[in-house]
Amino acid sequence: MAITLVALEGIGAIRPGDDLAALLAEAIGRAGGGDGDLLVVCQKAVSKAEGRVVRLDDVRPSAPAERIALEIEKDPRIVEVILGETRRIVRMDQKHLIVETRQGYVCANAGVDESNSLDASTVILLPEDADASAARLRDQLRARTSLDLPVLITDTFGRPWREGLVEVAIGVAGFLPMLDFRGKRDLTGRELHHTVVAVADELAAAAGLLMDKDRGTPAILVRGYPFQRGEGHAAELLRERSKDLFR
Amino acid sequence: MAITLVALEGIGAIRPGDDLAALLAEAIGRAGGGDGDLLVVCQKAVSKAEGRVVRLDDVRPSAPAERIALEIEKDPRIVEVILGETRRIVRMDQKHLIVETRQGYVCANAGVDESNSLDASTVILLPEDADASAARLRDQLRARTSLDLPVLITDTFGRPWREGLVEVAIGVAGFLPMLDFRGKRDLTGRELHHTVVAVADELAAAAGLLMDKDRGTPAILVRGYPFQRGEGHAAELLRERSKDLFR
Repeated sequence: MAITLVALEGIGAIRPGDDLAALLAEAIGRAGGGDGDLLVVCQKAVSKAEGRVVRLDDVRPSAPAERIALEIEKDPRIVEVILGETRRIVRMDQKHLIVETRQGYVCANAGVDESNSLDASTVILLPEDADASAARLRDQLRARTSLDLPVLITDTFGRPWREGLVEVAIGVAGFLPMLDFRGKRDLTGRELHHTVVAVADELAAAAGLLMDKDRGTPAILVRGYPFQRGEGHAAELLRERSKDLFR
Repeated sequence: MAITLVALEGIGAIRPGDDLAALLAEAIGRAGGGDGDLLVVCQKAVSKAEGRVVRLDDVRPSAPAERIALEIEKDPRIVEVILGETRRIVRMDQKHLIVETRQGYVCANAGVDESNSLDASTVILLPEDADASAARLRDQLRARTSLDLPVLITDTFGRPWREGLVEVAIGVAGFLPMLDFRGKRDLTGRELHHTVVAVADELAAAAGLLMDKDRGTPAILVRGYPFQRGEGHAAELLRERSKDLFR
């Protein structure tokens, strides 16, 4: 068994209002995309196409934003944008601002992105609802390509305990993000306890190997992965606070 | 650009004392492995071959192990084994025991594995030093195949904030586990702050998509990934406690 990850080339830098589905459909066509493929798209391309862009010149920082900006040594306008996307501050320390976003992701700076933006005076926000963004892209691609490609939207997150960033799932459409092995037996007949695999995050990380931000490769086709079709959502990957020992 | 993940078939269940390098070399040969490939092996196969196996009948639980076992509703002999691998208990709650292992990994049950073991009366420990295990495997495979394949040993870990388990890197040899983009510029010329990508974890997660524990697929060949050769170690992925906001 083999899985192939194919970088979709020739898409170029996305700008607000671009028809992302059209650009992706063309690139999928060039790559010979077919049934059984799964499409991974980076958040930044989706956010830009959706116009989730803020001009810093238009931002008036509030007093709390000014205070936090001093503490973490950040542009107060960017902190203001971050706080607007924030449900709750999880940690603020060592110049890092880790928050729970309105969507429930726990990540640095509420996913507000200063790099790889349209220019140095803008920042990019996460999609309002990346599961809905994925579902829209899936529908638009179905209309354009006659393929029902599952769609996975990813972003680059840090994590506790481990150095370095990895690509994780923030939006899912058309497949199940978790594979549940509970109740199944291992090779010796013993039950596989607690084994629920976050395949959407594994797919995201795999795609991350090819998503070169310096070269503008926003989308990857995963070929040969036996995904489970279904109406899954990346929101299922968010651990409920009551079950989370770390919030 | 494309990356292919190839499951190495026909290795079968590993038993203590098995020559894992020989079994892997044969499977790599069958898969047409070549220069530029990278080998991913699951921890369980490595641990079994290294004899990191404990018979529960041989374990006499201590008083602390008995006490913790009551609290988390686990076999006190298994808790005793876990404590023997533990440097520090990070969290104990909701029937979970999350510890920092002697090697510095933060994970459930110190990586002590009850499932997919040799039989129901044994458990499997993490390798004593998985970076050293990876280096040994690399040397042994170089001798047998004349290929210098980078080796990545992985295990299945949970993580805070997110549901589901993912495959992560615990041993590395022959390549750099982190790619450092700091100082590089994005498409608009703005510096890419804080962007150090944990490629070893992304490779581990990618391989996790094919490591089917029910079917005994312990190793994956990654083909076409432009890894950086070098004397890297998975230990670099462990965040120093002083820099970790979550310990």
